[in-house]
Amino acid sequence: MKALLLVAHGSRRQRSNDEVIELAQKLKSECVDHYDIVQAAFLELADTLIADGIENCVNAGASHITVLPYFLNSGRHVTEDIPHDVDNTRSKFPNVQIHIAQHIGESPAMIPLLKAAAVNNS
Amino acid sequence: MKALLLVAHGSRRQRSNDEVIELAQKLKSECVDHYDIVQAAFLELADTLIADGIENCVNAGASHITVLPYFLNSGRHVTEDIPHDVDNTRSKFPNVQIHIAQHIGESPAMIPLLKAAAVNNS
Repeated sequence: MKALLLVAHGSRRQRSNDEVIELAQKLKSECVDHYDIVQAAFLELADTLIADGIENCVNAGASHITVLPYFLNSGRHVTEDIPHDVDNTRSKFPNVQIHIAQHIGESPAMIPLLKAAAVNNS
Repeated sequence: MKALLLVAHGSRRQRSNDEVIELAQKLKSECVDHYDIVQAAFLELADTLIADGIENCVNAGASHITVLPYFLNSGRHVTEDIPHDVDNTRSKFPNVQIHIAQHIGESPAMIPLLKAAAVNNS
Protein backbone atom coordinates (compact mmCIF):
# COMPACT_ATOMS: atom_id res chain seq x y z
CA MET A 1 0.00 0.00 0.00
CA LYS A 2 1.15 3.51 -0.82
CA ALA A 3 0.92 6.44 1.55
CA LEU A 4 1.34 10.18 1.07
CA LEU A 5 2.42 12.19 4.09
CA LEU A 6 1.92 15.93 3.64
CA VAL A 7 4.41 17.58 5.99
CA ALA A 8 3.89 21.19 7.04
CA HIS A 9 5.85 23.32 9.48
CA GLY A 10 3.26 23.32 12.26
CA SER A 11 1.96 26.31 14.18
CA ARG A 12 1.01 27.20 17.74
CA ARG A 13 -2.25 28.31 16.16
CA GLN A 14 -4.41 25.19 15.92
CA ARG A 15 -6.53 26.62 13.13
CA SER A 16 -3.45 26.81 10.94
CA ASN A 17 -2.68 23.12 11.63
CA ASP A 18 -6.31 22.21 10.96
CA GLU A 19 -6.00 23.84 7.52
CA VAL A 20 -3.20 21.40 6.68
CA ILE A 21 -5.21 18.43 7.96
CA GLU A 22 -8.18 19.54 5.84
CA LEU A 23 -5.88 19.98 2.85
CA ALA A 24 -4.63 16.41 3.28
CA GLN A 25 -8.23 15.19 3.40
CA LYS A 26 -9.06 17.00 0.15
CA LEU A 27 -5.88 15.66 -1.41
CA LYS A 28 -6.84 12.13 -0.40
CA SER A 29 -10.01 12.27 -2.47
CA GLU A 30 -8.02 13.64 -5.44
CA CYS A 31 -5.33 10.97 -5.25
CA VAL A 32 -7.33 7.78 -4.69
CA ASP A 33 -5.86 6.25 -7.84
CA HIS A 34 -2.30 6.72 -6.58
CA TYR A 35 -2.37 6.61 -2.77
CA ASP A 36 -4.26 4.35 -0.40
CA ILE A 37 -3.43 6.55 2.58
CA VAL A 38 -3.06 10.35 2.73
CA GLN A 39 -2.25 12.02 6.03
CA ALA A 40 -0.78 15.23 7.40
CA ALA A 41 2.16 15.59 9.78
CA PHE A 42 4.20 18.46 11.16
CA LEU A 43 7.84 19.30 11.63
CA GLU A 44 7.23 20.95 14.98
CA LEU A 45 4.77 22.80 17.22
CA ALA A 46 1.83 20.51 16.44
CA ASP A 47 0.54 17.04 17.15
CA THR A 48 1.50 14.26 14.75
CA LEU A 49 5.16 14.93 14.20
CA ILE A 50 6.89 13.37 11.19
CA ALA A 51 7.89 10.20 13.08
CA ASP A 52 4.30 9.77 14.32
CA GLY A 53 2.92 10.37 10.83
CA ILE A 54 5.21 7.73 9.31
CA GLU A 55 4.32 5.27 12.08
CA ASN A 56 0.61 5.93 11.50
CA CYS A 57 1.04 5.18 7.80
CA VAL A 58 2.93 1.97 8.53
CA ASN A 59 0.28 0.90 11.04
CA ALA A 60 -2.34 1.53 8.36
CA GLY A 61 -0.48 -0.89 6.08
CA ALA A 62 1.84 1.33 4.04
CA SER A 63 4.85 -0.27 2.38
CA HIS A 64 5.77 2.85 0.39
CA ILE A 65 5.57 6.36 1.85
CA THR A 66 6.04 9.61 -0.05
CA VAL A 67 6.78 12.57 2.20
CA LEU A 68 5.63 15.78 0.48
CA PRO A 69 7.05 18.92 2.16
CA TYR A 70 4.41 21.65 2.21
CA PHE A 71 7.08 24.33 2.21
CA LEU A 72 7.78 27.19 -0.20
CA ASN A 73 11.52 27.69 0.18
CA SER A 74 14.55 25.46 0.32
CA GLY A 75 15.52 26.61 3.79
CA ARG A 76 16.97 24.57 6.61
CA HIS A 77 13.64 22.88 7.33
CA VAL A 78 13.53 21.39 3.83
CA THR A 79 17.22 20.68 3.36
CA GLU A 80 18.09 19.41 6.84
CA ASP A 81 15.27 19.05 9.37
CA ILE A 82 12.77 16.99 7.36
CA PRO A 83 15.45 14.61 5.96
CA HIS A 84 16.85 14.24 9.51
CA ASP A 85 13.48 13.32 10.99
CA VAL A 86 12.68 10.94 8.14
CA ASP A 87 16.08 9.26 8.35
CA ASN A 88 15.56 8.66 12.05
CA THR A 89 12.48 6.55 11.28
CA ARG A 90 14.04 4.38 8.57
CA SER A 91 15.82 2.01 10.96
CA LYS A 92 12.53 1.47 12.77
CA PHE A 93 10.78 0.39 9.56
CA PRO A 94 13.47 -1.29 7.40
CA ASN A 95 10.90 -2.91 5.11
CA VAL A 96 9.14 0.35 4.27
CA GLN A 97 10.35 2.52 1.40
CA ILE A 98 10.27 6.19 2.36
CA HIS A 99 10.88 8.86 -0.24
CA ILE A 100 10.98 12.63 0.22
CA ALA A 101 9.49 14.54 -2.71
CA GLN A 102 10.56 18.04 -3.72
CA HIS A 103 9.02 20.79 -1.59
CA ILE A 104 6.07 22.41 -3.29
CA GLY A 105 7.87 25.73 -3.89
CA GLU A 106 9.78 23.85 -6.60
CA SER A 107 6.61 22.82 -8.41
CA PRO A 108 6.44 23.91 -12.05
CA ALA A 109 2.80 24.77 -11.29
CA MET A 110 3.83 27.49 -8.81
CA ILE A 111 4.35 30.26 -11.37
CA PRO A 112 0.93 29.66 -13.00
CA LEU A 113 -0.63 29.60 -9.50
CA LEU A 114 1.05 32.91 -8.59
CA LYS A 115 0.09 34.43 -11.92
CA ALA A 116 -3.56 33.49 -11.41
CA ALA A 117 -3.50 34.91 -7.86
CA ALA A 118 -1.83 38.10 -9.09
CA VAL A 119 -4.09 38.64 -12.08
CA ASN A 120 -7.29 37.91 -10.16
CA ASN A 121 -6.29 40.63 -7.73
CA SER A 122 -4.97 43.23 -10.18
CA MET B 1 0.87 52.20 -13.04
CA LYS B 2 0.18 48.92 -11.30
CA ALA B 3 2.65 47.08 -9.10
CA LEU B 4 2.71 43.58 -7.66
CA LEU B 5 4.68 43.07 -4.47
CA LEU B 6 5.34 39.41 -3.71
CA VAL B 7 5.85 39.23 0.06
CA ALA B 8 7.64 36.24 1.57
CA HIS B 9 8.66 35.57 5.15
CA GLY B 10 12.37 36.13 4.70
CA SER B 11 15.19 33.89 5.84
CA ARG B 12 18.64 34.22 7.38
CA ARG B 13 19.70 32.03 4.47
CA GLN B 14 20.30 34.38 1.55
CA ARG B 15 19.77 31.63 -1.03
CA SER B 16 16.22 31.24 0.20
CA ASN B 17 15.58 34.98 -0.22
CA ASP B 18 17.18 34.90 -3.66
CA GLU B 19 14.68 32.20 -4.67
CA VAL B 20 11.85 34.62 -3.92
CA ILE B 21 13.54 37.43 -5.86
CA GLU B 22 14.00 35.08 -8.84
CA LEU B 23 10.37 34.00 -8.54
CA ALA B 24 9.26 37.64 -8.68
CA GLN B 25 11.37 38.13 -11.79
CA LYS B 26 9.78 35.13 -13.49
CA LEU B 27 6.35 36.35 -12.42
CA LYS B 28 7.08 39.76 -13.92
CA SER B 29 7.53 38.28 -17.38
CA GLU B 30 4.28 36.29 -16.96
CA CYS B 31 2.25 39.29 -15.81
CA VAL B 32 3.34 42.04 -18.23
CA ASP B 33 -0.25 42.54 -19.37
CA HIS B 34 -1.42 43.22 -15.81
CA TYR B 35 1.48 44.72 -13.86
CA ASP B 36 4.05 47.31 -14.85
CA ILE B 37 6.18 46.56 -11.80
CA VAL B 38 6.76 43.23 -10.04
CA GLN B 39 9.05 43.09 -7.03
CA ALA B 40 9.75 40.95 -3.97
CA ALA B 41 9.77 42.05 -0.34
CA PHE B 42 10.07 40.31 3.01
CA LEU B 43 8.29 40.38 6.33
CA GLU B 44 11.51 40.01 8.28
CA LEU B 45 15.09 38.72 8.32
CA ALA B 46 15.92 39.97 4.82
CA ASP B 47 16.64 43.15 2.93
CA THR B 48 13.73 44.98 1.33
CA LEU B 49 11.12 44.81 4.06
CA ILE B 50 7.48 45.45 3.18
CA ALA B 51 7.71 49.22 3.78
CA ASP B 52 10.82 49.40 1.56
CA GLY B 53 9.13 47.32 -1.13
CA ILE B 54 6.09 49.58 -1.19
CA GLU B 55 8.28 52.66 -1.30
CA ASN B 56 10.30 51.18 -4.18
CA CYS B 57 7.08 50.55 -6.12
CA VAL B 58 5.87 54.12 -5.50
CA ASN B 59 9.23 55.53 -6.53
CA ALA B 60 8.96 53.48 -9.73
CA GLY B 61 5.62 55.18 -10.44
CA ALA B 62 3.04 52.82 -8.96
CA SER B 63 -0.41 54.23 -8.18
CA HIS B 64 -1.92 50.81 -7.39
CA ILE B 65 -0.05 48.13 -5.46
CA THR B 66 -1.19 44.55 -4.92
CA VAL B 67 0.59 42.82 -2.05
CA LEU B 68 0.59 39.05 -2.64
CA PRO B 69 1.55 37.08 0.48
CA TYR B 70 3.74 34.12 -0.48
CA PHE B 71 2.57 32.16 2.55
CA LEU B 72 0.81 28.82 2.84
CA ASN B 73 -1.14 29.17 6.07
CA SER B 74 -3.36 31.81 7.60
CA GLY B 75 -1.14 32.23 10.63
CA ARG B 76 -0.29 35.40 12.50
CA HIS B 77 2.06 36.60 9.74
CA VAL B 78 -0.79 36.64 7.22
CA THR B 79 -3.60 37.77 9.50
CA GLU B 80 -1.73 40.38 11.56
CA ASP B 81 1.86 41.14 10.65
CA ILE B 82 1.55 41.80 6.91
CA PRO B 83 -1.63 43.95 7.30
CA HIS B 84 0.11 45.83 10.13
CA ASP B 85 3.18 46.62 8.05
CA VAL B 86 1.10 47.59 5.01
CA ASP B 87 -1.19 49.82 7.08
CA ASN B 88 1.83 51.64 8.45
CA THR B 89 2.79 52.70 4.92
CA ARG B 90 -0.65 53.96 3.84
CA SER B 91 -0.37 57.33 5.59
CA LYS B 92 2.96 57.91 3.88
CA PHE B 93 1.43 57.37 0.43
CA PRO B 94 -2.19 58.59 0.68
CA ASN B 95 -2.62 58.72 -3.11
CA VAL B 96 -1.54 55.13 -3.68
CA GLN B 97 -4.08 52.32 -3.50
CA ILE B 98 -2.63 49.33 -1.68
CA HIS B 99 -4.52 46.04 -1.62
CA ILE B 100 -3.54 42.80 0.10
CA ALA B 101 -4.47 39.70 -1.91
CA GLN B 102 -5.27 36.34 -0.33
CA HIS B 103 -2.21 34.36 0.67
CA ILE B 104 -1.34 31.70 -1.88
CA GLY B 105 -2.30 28.79 0.39
CA GLU B 106 -5.89 29.82 -0.31
CA SER B 107 -5.47 29.53 -4.06
CA PRO B 108 -7.92 27.15 -5.76
CA ALA B 109 -4.91 25.98 -7.78
CA MET B 110 -3.17 24.64 -4.67
CA ILE B 111 -4.94 21.25 -4.62
CA PRO B 112 -4.13 20.56 -8.30
CA LEU B 113 -0.51 21.62 -7.63
CA LEU B 114 -0.28 19.26 -4.65
CA LYS B 115 -1.94 16.46 -6.60
CA ALA B 116 0.58 16.84 -9.43
CA ALA B 117 3.49 16.88 -6.96
CA ALA B 118 2.09 13.81 -5.17
CA VAL B 119 1.33 11.80 -8.29
CA ASN B 120 4.67 12.59 -9.94
CA ASN B 121 6.39 11.19 -6.86
CA SER B 122 4.16 8.16 -6.22
